[in-house]
Parts: sequence; C-alpha cells; structure tokens
Amino acid sequence: MTTGPHPRTALLRAYVETLQARDWDRFAELLHPDVVYRMPQTREVVRGRAAYLRWNQDYPDGWELSVGVAYGDDHGAAARVDVVFRGEPQTALVFVPFADDGLITSVTDWWPEPCDPPSGREHLTERS
Amino acid sequence: MTTGPHPRTALLRAYVETLQARDWDRFAELLHPDVVYRMPQTREVVRGRAAYLRWNQDYPDGWELSVGVAYGDDHGAAARVDVVFRGEPQTALVFVPFADDGLITSVTDWWPEPCDPPSGREHLTERS
Repeated sequence: MTTGPHPRTALLRAYVETLQARDWDRFAELLHPDVVYRMPQTREVVRGRAAYLRWNQDYPDGWELSVGVAYGDDHGAAARVDVVFRGEPQTALVFVPFADDGLITSVTDWWPEPCDPPSGREHLTERS
Repeated sequence: MTTGPHPRTALLRAYVETLQARDWDRFAELLHPDVVYRMPQTREVVRGRAAYLRWNQDYPDGWELSVGVAYGDDHGAAARVDVVFRGEPQTALVFVPFADDGLITSVTDWWPEPCDPPSGREHLTERS
C-alpha cells in the first residue's frame, strides 16, 4: 500500500510535456543520472541519463503526446499517454517510480496494440 | 494534477485479490452498480455490476493474479498486474478511477503483447 499526501503526477506530466516540447534541458533535469528506461514488450533497456536523452533525441520528430489519465503518490505515478505519430493514434501506458529526491529513476513504457477479442464471449460484451 | 492524502491503491489491490480468490461477494461489494469495464484493444465494453460479475465468473478458472506495482490517489489508481494463465505469463495494466463513495466506477484493462523492436535503434539499447 502507498502512503503520503503529495502525489507525484505533476512530475510525470512534466516528463510528458517536456518530451512533447522536445525541451531537452528541462527533460534532463527531471531524470536521475542512473535512470533506467524499459520497454518490456521488446525487452529493450536504456541505462543512464545521457543514453536516455539520446534515445529520445534520435527519435523522429512528429509525435503528439498528451496525458489522458494519471494517478500518483509518493512512490510514483502511472499515466495513459495518448499519442499521435504520423497521423496514427496510439496509446502508451507509462509507469514511473520516483526516488526520494523527486527525480525519475526509471520509466517503463507499454504500447498495447488493437486486436480482435477471442471468440466465445460475445454474449458478455458490447463493442464500442 | 491529483490531490489528497488517502491513496486508493488498497481498493485496487482488493479488486485484484478478490478476483484471484474468485470471492464474488467481496468482489461485487467493491463495484459501483453502474460500473463500466473497458478493454480498449478489442473495444469490448461491459456495463453494470451484474454483467461485469458474469463476465468474470464465466471466465475459465486457473489464472494467477498478483499486483506488481500500484500507484494511486483520491482520483483512482493504476497497477501492473502480473498474470499467469495456463502456465503463460502475461501482463495487464489496469486503470481504475473511483467515485466519491469509494466504489469502483470503471475499470480499463490493457494487455500488451511481446513484440520485436523496430530496426534501426539497436545502437541505443540493450536487451534484457
């Protein structure tokens, strides 16, 4: 169970906003020097602030990022980030624990893809 | 930005624990009568407590669910749920806002799948 009166969702929002703005100076200020980025679906890992900056800077420009929902507490925050990349909408789920000094020590991203439901449960659901 | 001193991750953990135990009485007590369940990847929607109970009860038994990480505040909570179903590990990302009375008014599940990274960024990452 988490505790504490000061949710850290503002820091996660700043992370997304500086990425969106490609404001690399402010972005880097949010990161712990030993930050670790993980994308579990591909098992990719990026270690350290310099490498994680390069990872983001080397990405092609043109994304639009906005925070859909975000919840957080003193231990960290999670958000659904609504992404448009080259006209294609995508969703990222981002989990970000925080170190005691308020810096981001790790980022874990998930990028679920649309898919068809398994057959046999149509009677239990509608489709949006 | 979220506010408030009383994170609700305990309620999300109870949701996962009662699902794991198939304790349908306690599970139902956590849900608002008008709860809406959404799986955006398949666009499936289940509306109402009775239908959402049936959705879960009709699922084949045999899952193992445990909360990996969870963050929350007065507005809701998000968790990574580690799932084993018929021997296969999976990950669910669960976002659960809460009504003022502390009941669960909606659940949004994401089930990302393993995938290969796009080519051209091998120089920026390691693989775990």
